[in-house]
Amino acid sequence: MAERIAGPEIERLIQLLARLPGLGPRSARRVALHLMRKREELLGPLSEAMRVAYERIVTCSRCGNIDTSDPCAICVDTRRDASTLIVVETVADLWALERAQPFRALYHVLGGVLSPLDGVGPDDLNLPKLIERAQSGDIREVILAVNATVDGQTTAHYIADLLVPTGVKTTRLAHGVPVGGELDYLDEGTLAAALERRTAL
Amino acid sequence: MAERIAGPEIERLIQLLARLPGLGPRSARRVALHLMRKREELLGPLSEAMRVAYERIVTCSRCGNIDTSDPCAICVDTRRDASTLIVVETVADLWALERAQPFRALYHVLGGVLSPLDGVGPDDLNLPKLIERAQSGDIREVILAVNATVDGQTTAHYIADLLVPTGVKTTRLAHGVPVGGELDYLDEGTLAAALERRTAL
Repeated sequence: MAERIAGPEIERLIQLLARLPGLGPRSARRVALHLMRKREELLGPLSEAMRVAYERIVTCSRCGNIDTSDPCAICVDTRRDASTLIVVETVADLWALERAQPFRALYHVLGGVLSPLDGVGPDDLNLPKLIERAQSGDIREVILAVNATVDGQTTAHYIADLLVPTGVKTTRLAHGVPVGGELDYLDEGTLAAALERRTAL
Repeated sequence: MAERIAGPEIERLIQLLARLPGLGPRSARRVALHLMRKREELLGPLSEAMRVAYERIVTCSRCGNIDTSDPCAICVDTRRDASTLIVVETVADLWALERAQPFRALYHVLGGVLSPLDGVGPDDLNLPKLIERAQSGDIREVILAVNATVDGQTTAHYIADLLVPTGVKTTRLAHGVPVGGELDYLDEGTLAAALERRTAL
């Protein structure tokens, strides 16, 4: 806003809201107005929930997940198969897999992938703890659930090599046609992989 | 999420974020992850900005605007033309006009429009204070900047009739505003033109 039309506190709120993913200056104003109209039902509770999250979130020292306890809720869940470790790039990927999942395993969050162009090397990833966990004797399989990008696949191969001495079985996600996907819209690499790894009906 | 994959504090944060306009469950999770990754730069400051807004926002007893002071920043702005009052339905409309504006006047926020179908009658709007302001002798013109909807135009005529005894000139926005359109969604150019070409009722 060119001129001040509301107190600086409201303008600061709008500026911060505009930095959320998916929001711009216009939608940030709409969100701010909505919050102010729903002061008791939404603004108050959300402000409090953010404060609590700010104070309590920690990175799990075991797996690298973000949660309000350390170890995180997943690491201490005794109903999970503790012999299988799913390696993911980010907490977002962990959440995506958990939503998908018929598979109750443990996780390990790398915090990124190897990317020489972006200056991300092995020391920037949560790797020493992964080796440590693989060596502990509790793990029988490590599933490398990294993105199917060049950097992701490079990282998968790098980790697979690192894990060879531990003797733990290392697998990666299958390549193929997404469920519900239309062939016409898929790239050649995916189609070639899907053809090559075709399965019997 | 079917099973608990994060502490209840994080799930509560996601649930509340999903209630913001324009966000759904999936984007709320993305926003929550973004906030947790940017704990110091964004989550902390935004939590604090919301707390401050929650504690300080008040409805201006003079014009019905929402701000952190009463009277609001607009009502106490001495550089404005205090003889012209722009009547709007909502604070969102006030903000939209302020963004457009070559026009530094005062405002009056109705808090809605007459709508028999929704059970909104004259008593539900901020009308007595509008009459009082019009009678004070300070106001020379009241611009009815209500939406160009049926309810908005009905409200404009109702208010124009109410204001006849005060002798104050009553105008409304020019029909540069598309019929059926809502102010909050219009571009600045259209709003500025509509203000400039206002016509006598």
